[in-house]
Amino acid sequence: MPEQLLLQEAVDKVRPLLGKGKVAGYIPALANVDPNKIGIAITTVDGTTIGAGDYLEPFSIQSISKVFSLTLALNLYTEEEIWNRVGKEPSGHSFNSLVQVELERGKPRNPFINAGALIIADLLQARLGAPKHRMLEVVRQLSQDPSVTYDKTVADSEFQFSARNASIAYLMKSFGNFDGDVDTVLKSYFHYCSLKMSCADLSRAMFYLANRGKTLAGDEIVTPVQTRQLNALLATSGLYDGAGEFAYRVGMPGKSGVGGGIIAVIPGDMSICVWSPELDINGNSLAGTAMLEHISQQLGRSIFRLFNYY
Amino acid sequence: MPEQLLLQEAVDKVRPLLGKGKVAGYIPALANVDPNKIGIAITTVDGTTIGAGDYLEPFSIQSISKVFSLTLALNLYTEEEIWNRVGKEPSGHSFNSLVQVELERGKPRNPFINAGALIIADLLQARLGAPKHRMLEVVRQLSQDPSVTYDKTVADSEFQFSARNASIAYLMKSFGNFDGDVDTVLKSYFHYCSLKMSCADLSRAMFYLANRGKTLAGDEIVTPVQTRQLNALLATSGLYDGAGEFAYRVGMPGKSGVGGGIIAVIPGDMSICVWSPELDINGNSLAGTAMLEHISQQLGRSIFRLFNYY
Amino acid sequence: MPEQLLLQEAVDKVRPLLGKGKVAGYIPALANVDPNKIGIAITTVDGTTIGAGDYLEPFSIQSISKVFSLTLALNLYTEEEIWNRVGKEPSGHSFNSLVQVELERGKPRNPFINAGALIIADLLQARLGAPKHRMLEVVRQLSQDPSVTYDKTVADSEFQFSARNASIAYLMKSFGNFDGDVDTVLKSYFHYCSLKMSCADLSRAMFYLANRGKTLAGDEIVTPVQTRQLNALLATSGLYDGAGEFAYRVGMPGKSGVGGGIIAVIPGDMSICVWSPELDINGNSLAGTAMLEHISQQLGRSIFRLFNYY
Amino acid sequence: MPEQLLLQEAVDKVRPLLGKGKVAGYIPALANVDPNKIGIAITTVDGTTIGAGDYLEPFSIQSISKVFSLTLALNLYTEEEIWNRVGKEPSGHSFNSLVQVELERGKPRNPFINAGALIIADLLQARLGAPKHRMLEVVRQLSQDPSVTYDKTVADSEFQFSARNASIAYLMKSFGNFDGDVDTVLKSYFHYCSLKMSCADLSRAMFYLANRGKTLAGDEIVTPVQTRQLNALLATSGLYDGAGEFAYRVGMPGKSGVGGGIIAVIPGDMSICVWSPELDINGNSLAGTAMLEHISQQLGRSIFRLFNYY
Repeated sequence: MPEQLLLQEAVDKVRPLLGKGKVAGYIPALANVDPNKIGIAITTVDGTTIGAGDYLEPFSIQSISKVFSLTLALNLYTEEEIWNRVGKEPSGHSFNSLVQVELERGKPRNPFINAGALIIADLLQARLGAPKHRMLEVVRQLSQDPSVTYDKTVADSEFQFSARNASIAYLMKSFGNFDGDVDTVLKSYFHYCSLKMSCADLSRAMFYLANRGKTLAGDEIVTPVQTRQLNALLATSGLYDGAGEFAYRVGMPGKSGVGGGIIAVIPGDMSICVWSPELDINGNSLAGTAMLEHISQQLGRSIFRLFNYY
Repeated sequence: MPEQLLLQEAVDKVRPLLGKGKVAGYIPALANVDPNKIGIAITTVDGTTIGAGDYLEPFSIQSISKVFSLTLALNLYTEEEIWNRVGKEPSGHSFNSLVQVELERGKPRNPFINAGALIIADLLQARLGAPKHRMLEVVRQLSQDPSVTYDKTVADSEFQFSARNASIAYLMKSFGNFDGDVDTVLKSYFHYCSLKMSCADLSRAMFYLANRGKTLAGDEIVTPVQTRQLNALLATSGLYDGAGEFAYRVGMPGKSGVGGGIIAVIPGDMSICVWSPELDINGNSLAGTAMLEHISQQLGRSIFRLFNYY
Repeated sequence: MPEQLLLQEAVDKVRPLLGKGKVAGYIPALANVDPNKIGIAITTVDGTTIGAGDYLEPFSIQSISKVFSLTLALNLYTEEEIWNRVGKEPSGHSFNSLVQVELERGKPRNPFINAGALIIADLLQARLGAPKHRMLEVVRQLSQDPSVTYDKTVADSEFQFSARNASIAYLMKSFGNFDGDVDTVLKSYFHYCSLKMSCADLSRAMFYLANRGKTLAGDEIVTPVQTRQLNALLATSGLYDGAGEFAYRVGMPGKSGVGGGIIAVIPGDMSICVWSPELDINGNSLAGTAMLEHISQQLGRSIFRLFNYY
Repeated sequence: MPEQLLLQEAVDKVRPLLGKGKVAGYIPALANVDPNKIGIAITTVDGTTIGAGDYLEPFSIQSISKVFSLTLALNLYTEEEIWNRVGKEPSGHSFNSLVQVELERGKPRNPFINAGALIIADLLQARLGAPKHRMLEVVRQLSQDPSVTYDKTVADSEFQFSARNASIAYLMKSFGNFDGDVDTVLKSYFHYCSLKMSCADLSRAMFYLANRGKTLAGDEIVTPVQTRQLNALLATSGLYDGAGEFAYRVGMPGKSGVGGGIIAVIPGDMSICVWSPELDINGNSLAGTAMLEHISQQLGRSIFRLFNYY
């Protein structure tokens, strides 16, 4: 089946699931999104991007930004400097739990739970003069879309409701694992989360994860080994407390956000982004996961010889 | 590099690590193993098994048996019957923790932690007339080695020190998630753990995980989809609390045992087994992990085009 | 007000609360009790016992037996031998939680939660030839009622549903803090719990706690110092997860059971027992607590000069 | 024995314990205190204050201030308003643990752990125009010592190291159980903790707890019932994770601070304050506890007829 048809089929197939999940409601700016939006885009290793549904409409990428943050940190710090401060293991707890951070004395389990992403944001703050500006620059280059921008309303609104993240940051500070001013780092962190990008943007931006670390523009943003490592972390910890289920059903490294987006990677083949705002009980896009599952099954059977890789 | 040389190189490369880990000491039968043993074997999709070091010497497979148990259960129960009683998520806790089982009301996180494996053993006990006999039969067929047998001394010794596993089983029973007589199921469980197999045996026995569910003898023991699912579970939960690190360094679905063995899979290419009795702090073979890391790096660069799959 | 009237008033005052709690339903033998039963008895330091309501009707004393067990253990072991194996602190967890026992490596917080009481039962088993027989003997002497007996149906029924307690016992055994055979100790433990005694019986039996360790018969079963210590433990840990609230409202050392009984002590003045089968959310008799609160307020104002002791 | 001699004996008796504990070292201002200081003072119900050792030397009262805060809150809010926001139960966790606060969704267990005291500080901030000023006023009146003052160095220093308390406050805010600006409330809270008072001051200031709520000046600062309730809370939750042991050994409602002070109450008889900077593993003054134990034993035998109250 031509890929374009496959994407359209994925959208059509899962549309009946709309209404079965729940849009993230903790801030008004997210709660007001149209729950019927649904889109998918892929960028294949030859550099082509195609999509179906609302794949050109920007949405709030939220935790998907944690992939960009970690990638940026890998350009500023040695591996040791990073992994001394944050672990590489699945959390086994709800994504914003303080229990684990306290029991493990201030070291978050991985860079994709909130605690770990705050550590990465703290690292960026320490080495970058203008981290918000730099992040925007990087994301625009990766996605080849100069119109990508922060949603100030979302960023400000999240900061208003940031008590739990502040609590996590101060807890890590109490263990000596947070250097910056908490409010400053939180503001940067929420800006990263507030990035508005479309499925097309995100599939292009994540292209390097499918392409041994090389971006669409041909720059090596991370090494091939680092790419493999990033994908390993995404495969074990990218989907909050649903990583096992996602591996079981979809079988791709991936990262979700409460805005309803999920990016996923078939190394050597393509980067994918799906979007549908309603979430399942683990906080992952319900219809988005189903689209990825459909794609995985179809490609596994038809196009890619070795795609049954797990 | 010819594969035979690669295996020998892996053994030679990691031998200096001997002495840096710790042999499992909770029962004498395990504590007395020679800590300097080291072996590796692979079985490639063409059905050839080669090895290096002590790859023909049987050792106690311990938790590696959990892969066989789950595979057997998939032949006796529907998916729903299994996954209603045990989850698919990484545990985020030490492998024999009761905390998670209590907090999640008797449902273990996955079938590869002790609690989950006890559920699987309970399932086998309920549907098999002679589960210990049947397990032996299956393992002998899979490994094509009729001499594989239980180590009664190990099984009995583990039963003597089974208080923690009994505690876990009774806890699940108190939540209505354990049907059988605890002592009976524990005895079966410890027999499975006490299986003595060599690296060659295990790489042959796990061949189906690399071969879309088909055994060396050509039987489909699980479907291709189930194979992908088993590998997904192994990738996220097969290495106790070190699954993230293992994915990061090695990037293969795998399962370890406290006897020092680790099996790993490159789907479509080969099944692997390494053995070295000394363990790291997560309870995984220290030198064994290093051998797999070496293999992963060497193969990634040289033989398999798509092997950088994560 | 004469004491007899006070007791009758307490019963009448709280009767409207009947129907607001919940009878313990985990075994049929307990679930079938008449929820409208209500009684109170006091034994004053002069040795007189008076009561009101159903104060002569035997009921299942359940966890109140933990006071007898600990008292018996104090006669068989040194303080050090006891407190090395069980703590003296409030638990801060639900009364049958394994989490605390695991986090604190097999040492229960105090002798009045299930885990701690199992340790005490284990101690009794180790030093007494016939612990069940001896317990009956002691309780009959203390209550001066030779007709006190075990309820075999309750004891057997609890043993049938003992998975959680078995889990706790095996967990402690896995940490080296449980010596006996788990089933044997559990059977003794459930026998102690199944004792049937009336409010009158219990107020007489607990007399020594109000009388510097001397029983109604004049024997010193514990020393004055031990009496003070027992009362201290009851004051901080006797009411499951409601000890603080009970101290706040009632202000007496006390011990409750899920059969709906509560014993309480005004040292130097009287021992009290109330009974009403319906429980509050902490597992303490709802109307029973209210009767004790009434008594505390009335006595505080009227009879006992120093009764505002805390 | 005359009381003056008793106090001197207590000091002499425990002096050999100096050197066996550890001075609180988390801020320099506390770490630099002379570890050999030791003092005791009592104020009997007739209003007389006597003391021994360094009983006139001011020290940092730290968590003892939580008694004053709660007392002040009882004058500003209804009971319901207070106990809806903070519990009355022993915590069963280390005194500054976030685990409990998270598991119990933002409601601290009692007003004497840090989390609970921060709630009380938040309540004071909301209703008092100048809470720090008012607190000073109250404490000066209660102690009849107009020279009592805050130690700005200590208050500022604690604020510098307040990450963990900030984390707790933000966590409660995330559950909707913290109204004020976190920094503002923390600053007030640390001021209360930084109060410098002598044993004599504190025994006088706590007089109302022994005197049915009436201060030395004759004002009823809390009602007799509230006094009994305060003492009940102190008896079950006043000594961090050592409340059970303290009840067992000393048998008085009490409150400790990491500055090495402990106040204790014999209702109807006297208020007591001991001071010795070295702490035991629970964070309570080691020699201070021993002095109270000595006093308790001596008075129990000799002066107070009914003092074996538990």
